[in-house]
Amino acid sequence: MADPHPFDAAMALQPAGEHLFTGHGSPAYWNMIGPFGGITAAVLLQAVLDHPQRLGDPVALTVNYAGAVAPGPFTIEARPARTNRSSQHWIVQQWQTDAQGQRQLASTATVLTALRRDTWAASDAPMPAAPPPEGLPRALRPGDMVAWLQRYETRVITGEIPGMAQGGWDGRVGESSLTRWWLRDDPPRPPCFASLAALADVFFPRIWLKRALRVPVGTVSMTVYFLADAATLAACGTRHLLAEARGQGFHGGHFDQTGLLWSPDGTLLASTHQVVYYKE
Amino acid sequence: MADPHPFDAAMALQPAGEHLFTGHGSPAYWNMIGPFGGITAAVLLQAVLDHPQRLGDPVALTVNYAGAVAPGPFTIEARPARTNRSSQHWIVQQWQTDAQGQRQLASTATVLTALRRDTWAASDAPMPAAPPPEGLPRALRPGDMVAWLQRYETRVITGEIPGMAQGGWDGRVGESSLTRWWLRDDPPRPPCFASLAALADVFFPRIWLKRALRVPVGTVSMTVYFLADAATLAACGTRHLLAEARGQGFHGGHFDQTGLLWSPDGTLLASTHQVVYYKE
Repeated sequence: MADPHPFDAAMALQPAGEHLFTGHGSPAYWNMIGPFGGITAAVLLQAVLDHPQRLGDPVALTVNYAGAVAPGPFTIEARPARTNRSSQHWIVQQWQTDAQGQRQLASTATVLTALRRDTWAASDAPMPAAPPPEGLPRALRPGDMVAWLQRYETRVITGEIPGMAQGGWDGRVGESSLTRWWLRDDPPRPPCFASLAALADVFFPRIWLKRALRVPVGTVSMTVYFLADAATLAACGTRHLLAEARGQGFHGGHFDQTGLLWSPDGTLLASTHQVVYYKE
Repeated sequence: MADPHPFDAAMALQPAGEHLFTGHGSPAYWNMIGPFGGITAAVLLQAVLDHPQRLGDPVALTVNYAGAVAPGPFTIEARPARTNRSSQHWIVQQWQTDAQGQRQLASTATVLTALRRDTWAASDAPMPAAPPPEGLPRALRPGDMVAWLQRYETRVITGEIPGMAQGGWDGRVGESSLTRWWLRDDPPRPPCFASLAALADVFFPRIWLKRALRVPVGTVSMTVYFLADAATLAACGTRHLLAEARGQGFHGGHFDQTGLLWSPDGTLLASTHQVVYYKE
């Protein structure tokens, strides 16, 4: 049997009692001093997806990055806080046990799952025109030494990370914090709800683009709204998704980012928002 | 002594034990069958603001509307889940006791508070040009019989509720779900973090504008990112804020909304996002 995709390996959770799951930090998705935030978002959602009492599919996910995550095992509690006729609200918490045997909260999340029904549908966020990914060079990434960056293939349409672009890290204040790119897992993998949550967090920090300056940053809270069903995600196959993100306000040590992800056929799959701590 | 502003009266919570507060549904902010969602968001945040262990000011708030809220008393648990050096993550839950004496979860929230520091600042979401509020007629609202609509003064620049606009509820599919308006509390009141959370939820459902059809709806999750400090909020005084919101994807019984709120001087105060259930 072939090895599982690194993403699926990272999503492997073991039941550990009522509402409890244990997992293990994935070296394949490691960042410099902790896991890639997107893989944490994904695995918190995965605990809900694995829960035997789950009703429906994900509609909303909010993840709060509360503390550092160390390599090794972690525990997730995914508790259905309220179950309605066609929707369910979840409270999720992730812990690790430190060297002193103390339980440390690493992250929290809330999740809404719901039955999707056949309704009127529309989009007010059409996919922007973009050249096909095949004609675009694969983006080099300054963090090619960082494992998780190797798990994603990005082909940049606009808003490349300054280190790779003309001018580089010259500290100019750019006119726009918009990045738009084609994006998929590497190795290619059809998106699912959990992997879409991770894909929503692949954008490098908007402040790096806006300032062309690499200040210390960390996402503190991220929300993903899932706007398409599982069949639409699966139908993307291993083609690239189009994704874009931009910053809005940068003030007092935090900025926000808003983003969208479309299927290769132009269907809006998700909108995503996050607020990011920055220093200086 | 003059009566307090209805918003301040709605925010009045009583300490009720460790991490616990009791409050009472405000008739002044009542909707048809429950409280205005914005006042629920505000009072969940208020519990954090009132907590003696709070560190810093609000940066992010996510509220999940889990179940119906009945008139009368409620209990809020606001628990600091993790406290770091300069930030704090909160888990908040609101309950009511039903006629059978059972505790029913009404809503959940996560809140991030943090110390704001003097940093580089910028905006990638400039305030759009708009005629001054004084020259615009005060919007009539079809729900003038609904108490909470009387708590806000809106002066519409674009995207009036179809019932008030040419064409009315004609079931056409509009070209845009964007509403932009001047907005303030009524009676006027300088914004604070809690009232800003409520102001972020004043927009009528985007699907009503997009379809020009009044289908049943309910917000299920809302996020507010606070992008300015308390002094900037206070400096708005009782002038109107400029606010806009639009839908992005409408599919399978849920749509998302993204919005921004600016001070009258053009400072970005908050970005806000929500996902809304709809029927049909």
